[in-house]
Amino acid sequence: MEAWFRYNWMVRDQWYQWCEELPHEELIRQRTGGTGSLLKTFFHIADVEWSWIQQLQGKPDELEDYEQYQTLERVKELDRRFRAEVEPFVKEWEESMETRPHYSGNAEGDADIYSWGEVMRHIIAHEIHHIGQLSVWAREIGKPPVSANFIGKGLIKPRV
Amino acid sequence: MEAWFRYNWMVRDQWYQWCEELPHEELIRQRTGGTGSLLKTFFHIADVEWSWIQQLQGKPDELEDYEQYQTLERVKELDRRFRAEVEPFVKEWEESMETRPHYSGNAEGDADIYSWGEVMRHIIAHEIHHIGQLSVWAREIGKPPVSANFIGKGLIKPRV
Repeated sequence: MEAWFRYNWMVRDQWYQWCEELPHEELIRQRTGGTGSLLKTFFHIADVEWSWIQQLQGKPDELEDYEQYQTLERVKELDRRFRAEVEPFVKEWEESMETRPHYSGNAEGDADIYSWGEVMRHIIAHEIHHIGQLSVWAREIGKPPVSANFIGKGLIKPRV
Repeated sequence: MEAWFRYNWMVRDQWYQWCEELPHEELIRQRTGGTGSLLKTFFHIADVEWSWIQQLQGKPDELEDYEQYQTLERVKELDRRFRAEVEPFVKEWEESMETRPHYSGNAEGDADIYSWGEVMRHIIAHEIHHIGQLSVWAREIGKPPVSANFIGKGLIKPRV
């Protein structure tokens, strides 16, 4: 599980670096699909990851107001703050947590029941999906996207 | 591991269904980013998944020629054929395979060494990334994309 989160954090950090070379207008420009902009995508990824991990722990998970995070620096700050809270939980993940139930309030006023393992994979897939969207926008801008490769990052060392 | 592959196969099948309502020209239309078209994306996802699984097993993995798969029906046929070979391997996955080394020839004529666990996650992330690209193209076409949610699909049952 930790390898997946480390993968997402590495790729996310590489995208932040990729963004450093872009003018601010490109970061907030309205685009088709996804969250509608590069900057909002990063905000959304960090926010959703943190909120679910907070929920699993029974901690408050009020979503942050995007209006307060209108620069790359501000979003990166939020991300650093969130990651410091998410990382210890991920590091302590163990097999026995996979099927632990999580009760999540739904729009009908009932609760959906998910396993913790499902929620963790939902967080992981959520980020990879949004990063895929960025890769299309990158080509529209005319800049090669960051690699999405899982291999080659030394995330799970082979026994040799 | 199996839950991840089942997730990808469910989402992929939902996208095939989504495509049924589109005229053929939309499937092969050149688009920005990714593999360049909806149809080629599905071909590429199925092909890459199968090739890696073949490689891990030391079986031949010659990539198919996309020119031979120019309709949704043909790609779905190929996918069914590949999936029948991939599924048994995925079902028999176990923890001890995670760090088993895989030697993969690289462009420099050497071999990169990856763990099997890395390769499996590479296959999984590869599909989710490309599906993210489809979601942008879907909005360009004006059709809501298939949900990328991992939760709500009953993939890992909670212990209740």
